[in-house]
Amino acid sequence: MEFTAVSHEPKYRDSYALDAQTLEIRVKTKKGDVQHADLIFGDPYLWEDEQWVKHSKAMHYSGSSEWYDFWTVRIHPLYQRVRYGFTFRSGQQTWTFTEKGWYNEPPKDTDEYFCFPFMNAVEVFRAPKWVEETVWYQIFPERFHNGDSSLSPEGTPPWGSKPPTPSNFFGGDLKGVEEKLDHLIELGVNGIYFTPIFKALSNHKYDTIDYFEVDPHFGDTDSLKSLIDACHKRGIRVMFDAVFNHSGFYFPPFQDVLKHGSESKYKDWFHIKDFPVKTSPAANYDTFAFTPQMPKLNTEHPEVKEYLLDVATYWIKEFDIDGWRLDVANEVDHTFWREFRMRTKAIKPDLFILGEIWHDSMPWLQGDQFDSVMNYPFTEAALDFVAKGRISSHTFAQRIAHILHQYPSPVHRVAFNLLGSHDTPRVLTEAGHNVSKVKMLYLLLFAFPGTPCIYYGDEIGLTGEHDPGCRKCMVWEKDQQNRDLFAFLQQLITLRKQHSSFSPQADLSIEHADADTNLLVLKKTNNNKEIYLVMNPSFHSQSMNLSFFESTHKETLIEEGIT
Amino acid sequence: MEFTAVSHEPKYRDSYALDAQTLEIRVKTKKGDVQHADLIFGDPYLWEDEQWVKHSKAMHYSGSSEWYDFWTVRIHPLYQRVRYGFTFRSGQQTWTFTEKGWYNEPPKDTDEYFCFPFMNAVEVFRAPKWVEETVWYQIFPERFHNGDSSLSPEGTPPWGSKPPTPSNFFGGDLKGVEEKLDHLIELGVNGIYFTPIFKALSNHKYDTIDYFEVDPHFGDTDSLKSLIDACHKRGIRVMFDAVFNHSGFYFPPFQDVLKHGSESKYKDWFHIKDFPVKTSPAANYDTFAFTPQMPKLNTEHPEVKEYLLDVATYWIKEFDIDGWRLDVANEVDHTFWREFRMRTKAIKPDLFILGEIWHDSMPWLQGDQFDSVMNYPFTEAALDFVAKGRISSHTFAQRIAHILHQYPSPVHRVAFNLLGSHDTPRVLTEAGHNVSKVKMLYLLLFAFPGTPCIYYGDEIGLTGEHDPGCRKCMVWEKDQQNRDLFAFLQQLITLRKQHSSFSPQADLSIEHADADTNLLVLKKTNNNKEIYLVMNPSFHSQSMNLSFFESTHKETLIEEGIT
Ligand SMILES: [Ca+2]
Ligand SMILES: [Ca+2]
Repeated sequence: MEFTAVSHEPKYRDSYALDAQTLEIRVKTKKGDVQHADLIFGDPYLWEDEQWVKHSKAMHYSGSSEWYDFWTVRIHPLYQRVRYGFTFRSGQQTWTFTEKGWYNEPPKDTDEYFCFPFMNAVEVFRAPKWVEETVWYQIFPERFHNGDSSLSPEGTPPWGSKPPTPSNFFGGDLKGVEEKLDHLIELGVNGIYFTPIFKALSNHKYDTIDYFEVDPHFGDTDSLKSLIDACHKRGIRVMFDAVFNHSGFYFPPFQDVLKHGSESKYKDWFHIKDFPVKTSPAANYDTFAFTPQMPKLNTEHPEVKEYLLDVATYWIKEFDIDGWRLDVANEVDHTFWREFRMRTKAIKPDLFILGEIWHDSMPWLQGDQFDSVMNYPFTEAALDFVAKGRISSHTFAQRIAHILHQYPSPVHRVAFNLLGSHDTPRVLTEAGHNVSKVKMLYLLLFAFPGTPCIYYGDEIGLTGEHDPGCRKCMVWEKDQQNRDLFAFLQQLITLRKQHSSFSPQADLSIEHADADTNLLVLKKTNNNKEIYLVMNPSFHSQSMNLSFFESTHKETLIEEGIT
Repeated sequence: MEFTAVSHEPKYRDSYALDAQTLEIRVKTKKGDVQHADLIFGDPYLWEDEQWVKHSKAMHYSGSSEWYDFWTVRIHPLYQRVRYGFTFRSGQQTWTFTEKGWYNEPPKDTDEYFCFPFMNAVEVFRAPKWVEETVWYQIFPERFHNGDSSLSPEGTPPWGSKPPTPSNFFGGDLKGVEEKLDHLIELGVNGIYFTPIFKALSNHKYDTIDYFEVDPHFGDTDSLKSLIDACHKRGIRVMFDAVFNHSGFYFPPFQDVLKHGSESKYKDWFHIKDFPVKTSPAANYDTFAFTPQMPKLNTEHPEVKEYLLDVATYWIKEFDIDGWRLDVANEVDHTFWREFRMRTKAIKPDLFILGEIWHDSMPWLQGDQFDSVMNYPFTEAALDFVAKGRISSHTFAQRIAHILHQYPSPVHRVAFNLLGSHDTPRVLTEAGHNVSKVKMLYLLLFAFPGTPCIYYGDEIGLTGEHDPGCRKCMVWEKDQQNRDLFAFLQQLITLRKQHSSFSPQADLSIEHADADTNLLVLKKTNNNKEIYLVMNPSFHSQSMNLSFFESTHKETLIEEGIT
């Protein structure tokens, strides 16, 4: 077998406690190399007759990525501690892999083995339970509904009368959201993720001027309190957007630095390279990307830290928000996020902390920082498969297996899964305006471990290219909404709530993925009940033998044809 | 090439900032597979003509373990952020490896690449600078020197008159250490690691009764203050042993639980499974190993945490200690250690935090917990090679390369390297009483990146099997000491202080390692000066062509023959 392909990252990606009693352990081998894998394990301090007392448990094959097979096992170490290794059967040969290397036989000394020293309860990855039961809805407030024209920016054109540009306004506001909560209830969602609502210059509000003030075009503290109350009364959780990587250009401390230069008491709040501060030809201070309007905050500075942690706790204490989504989360230091978690969870233990990270996020998902990240790797795989037809069902299945083995499984239970956002083209546009494809994508979204998020308007068939196109005004005229798509999403949400095998607790497995036919069959299982999702993204008729899910009780829950 | 062998763990083992400007990046490939590796990298936000602006830099081959070749490169991202991938030349083929997989050509989209989001200065791994310059000496106080017979336990036999047992006492104490500081100065060490000195029942004192009191057989706060002052005056740093995983059986809170059971206010200070508490036939509470005398502390409990953090800060504030060595560090939760670091470094920023971990320690070496760990993997490799003759110089070189690529390189600069401790047989015993072998082992120890530690008595040729054998009384009669070994160690310490190429800042590389002859040549380089260490552990004469270190100025620093 190919020894060099085998890897195992202990107490990080590949071994972790599910609860104080249960340890999950994974290992990967070169695809097709191994027919059987066993975990060899024992308590490090349990010896009999000078022999280490070790046990063996078969691992189960849990999927294949493009290059690897994955093996997974759960054990319940009596004394919360374990040393372990792996024995693989490859053809007629058997090999043992441990922290120290490869052996013909399991070594005798515990020092050779991988170590999970102690399953301290505090280290079990724990996200708020309510998140698993949440179906999210993302609102870009400037474009959802204009509930109070008196607040709208000067010269605001009629709602939706023009295409969105990087700088125009349409007057959406908090009162508008509150007025349209019925729409969300009708759809069935129970969590709103709001892009920023604090005072800022732009229409997207990612250039904060005042972190303690509601943007005056959106409303005030009264309209916000009223909206959050209305949400909570209807069982809808509220998540805000924390833009802590950078401030806006008109954030008073930055203005003070512009004015007073090295004399400013805020000079260390940013990363200023030299004085006087200038914005052209290039900014001489760190920014988000190369945007002088977004000076990077020095989150290592005690005053900045204190200021931002005050912001984080203020909106929880005063407005009872349920979650923080962290903008550009990976460019802010880990130390800040650890303190963020401690301070916010101290006042609201079931606060949800969601990081915006597009890349591998393991360094933030060790239990000390985020509860979850935005699952763009899922987005990309699903769009490549169904919307763009770039990859086969077989390749899609491999991408999914890779994603599911990338992080500890408790992380996936609260993964924030999405098909699009204010930062991507809309899903219907990605799918070439093919609504059937969008439905199939939503089926994947709802079948995937974690929580689904619907970007406002996607449920009624809004289209739009990349920003600013994807930030169109919501369409409220029912005759201009795709009610069929809306009904389909309602049905999925209902299914998720009512069928245990479609619930967030259900396991997902890939039953069939054929590179030639492109047919894909997923299975969701919970409490011995199964749901099969049979997908034909080729969009021409194909026949398939479905005998593998013969059972005594069979029911078709959803059936959607090619349109 | 073998794609499956290639792995890269970003922002963890394989990419890390050396300082706020320099990023070091590593990747491993299957041994012999790749002739050339390039890093492909660029700023994620720097695009020209809709093309991502990317650069290429050759990686250098930095060693081989048994199965892998390692490649390393340093870059200086202008804006402290980077996306990167690797291009490998294998035979006539070129392949690119990124976060998303394998390609014929470097992909165009930054999303495909590995991500180092931002080099926040606070995240640079920083251990105290003084540690690099330290040569440690480990003292087991009960066995070093009896300076005050009036404190000795009743019935203490004459010093060294009996073999050590798990339970006997010889009367060593703090005054004894102070009296013998000249010995340490003569040797040249400048740091002492004391095994525990707090009030405890046993001779090893790992079963604490009072964390705030000096063991009465060792002295009192006055003799401790006097000793620490004397050390500091002579430029010797002092590190204490923090036994926070478990207390002793006679720790008053545990006694309270024994007495009052579930009514005790300390009942949650431990992990009691049911009441009443019992010790036989098995303890019904968590313990260190299966030792009822060492009840595991519940370090998640706020009161316990506060108590232990008080202990940690008390000895720094009141006695100005310079370091804490953390006993059984990996069985205590990460959350506790993070707080430990914050609280102790807040009052003494250059405190050294050293974890006792025998296994892979990456989860504790991310900058938020420990500065270093006890480098037993080095110990094992060195003993296998020289003392036990179990592995060839070639295999030793592979083990070394594996160790050096296991953690970020800043970690190695303060690695706590040792040939033995109170927990292992003594090095002279491991070497079959062959002093020449021990000298060669010390040469390896001093050549290895990090800081060397000498276990008391090893410098004058003490022997001893595993505990209790390795805890013999120190021999002070010069005619019974191996003064030749002592002089050799003096020479190594002097060399380390005086020769920049033997200093802690020097790089180590393996110049020659031959499985047949077993000859090993190491090179230490600093500021263009080189030291070659030529070792012949076969202990019979062999000739070797040394022309590879011909130079204009050549000097023999140490020469040791076979004895
Ligand atoms: Ca308005
Ligand atoms: Ca004494």
